[in-house]
Amino acid sequence: MNKVAVILSGSGVFDGSEIYESVLTFLRLEHHGVKYQCFAPNIDQMHVINHLTGEVAEGETRNVLVEAARLARGEIQDLATADPNEFDALIIPGGFGAAKNLSDFAVKGADCSLNADLVRFARAIHEAGKPVGLICITPALTPKLLGTGIQCTIGNDEGVSGAIETMGGQHQTCAVDQIVVDSENKVVTTPAYMLAGSISEAGAGINKLVDKVLQMA
Amino acid sequence: MNKVAVILSGSGVFDGSEIYESVLTFLRLEHHGVKYQCFAPNIDQMHVINHLTGEVAEGETRNVLVEAARLARGEIQDLATADPNEFDALIIPGGFGAAKNLSDFAVKGADCSLNADLVRFARAIHEAGKPVGLICITPALTPKLLGTGIQCTIGNDEGVSGAIETMGGQHQTCAVDQIVVDSENKVVTTPAYMLAGSISEAGAGINKLVDKVLQMA
Repeated sequence: MNKVAVILSGSGVFDGSEIYESVLTFLRLEHHGVKYQCFAPNIDQMHVINHLTGEVAEGETRNVLVEAARLARGEIQDLATADPNEFDALIIPGGFGAAKNLSDFAVKGADCSLNADLVRFARAIHEAGKPVGLICITPALTPKLLGTGIQCTIGNDEGVSGAIETMGGQHQTCAVDQIVVDSENKVVTTPAYMLAGSISEAGAGINKLVDKVLQMA
Repeated sequence: MNKVAVILSGSGVFDGSEIYESVLTFLRLEHHGVKYQCFAPNIDQMHVINHLTGEVAEGETRNVLVEAARLARGEIQDLATADPNEFDALIIPGGFGAAKNLSDFAVKGADCSLNADLVRFARAIHEAGKPVGLICITPALTPKLLGTGIQCTIGNDEGVSGAIETMGGQHQTCAVDQIVVDSENKVVTTPAYMLAGSISEAGAGINKLVDKVLQMA
């Protein structure tokens, strides 16, 4: 095992990466003694959400890479510079940032488009036969990120699972503490905070996802 | 056990609460089935640090409570409204926010002053004989927060431990995976990211701190 790439989308559930899901991912990788490198796109966030009120912070602008650096204690690099040959697997935690900054799924649903650097990197990992783990809302990007016909889960939300099917994905209902594994395509997904009511509930599925991704690498 | 109060100081190691230390604290409280409530002061941060470059983000202003809400998924309250009678213990994670927003220790060292709502709440918890856990740099506030003569640790940094002694505290050198317990005063401290090189290293001490705080409550 060389190293795992983790792609972040900011820092905060409502406009970036879900913090608990990201930390649980890092912690499980560390548990296995596996090194990882965080990346994020060097672009402005779709918007900034005041996490106290849930409202859009009008007039405020934040950069995805700069905010994601909070979650990585500064140890993060521009996704545009990421070399897929240096990594054996890819994991992308959830949070609305996946649907707002890595893509515009939050606004356009099945008509979404994805960040070009994200697609370049993830496709290269996938096409090299290396495993990809997607957490929470991020599996909604599966068909456009990795290709159609891949099994994945976002839990049981009918709107999101319907959009996945529309884009050509194969959604499977899944409990919060479980994972869906597409062995042929080496894609592992778990609902996490699409369903979780606590950090440890999210952790149960995320630990299984990280374990499976490492096993497939 | 009723509930534990956790006081945050923003979201990000360089100008707020250390994210990993905070999540590890929540996770260990959950592990024990203990409920907690996050609080933060409703004030502006001392400054905003770009966590990618480590530089001050000139002209940018952020509110401590609003940023800390990211780390609490919105489940946080203004520290000014916190009622010490509702809680059986207090834990304060580290990060520079403790030395920049909860106090001005980062600028003034032993001549620092502390946020008035923080002192009111923590003193009431302490004087009611309830345990207080302080993580990372936060134990530097011990003498002015809880009183002189209390044993605590920030690891082995000579500058910070000297300032603690100057303020009337009793510093003890401590390894990253250990805690210092002042049983008489019910104060528990651990170095965490004052020394930690990984999340799990910080977690070893934080888990012991949470366990000891709950045992004393």
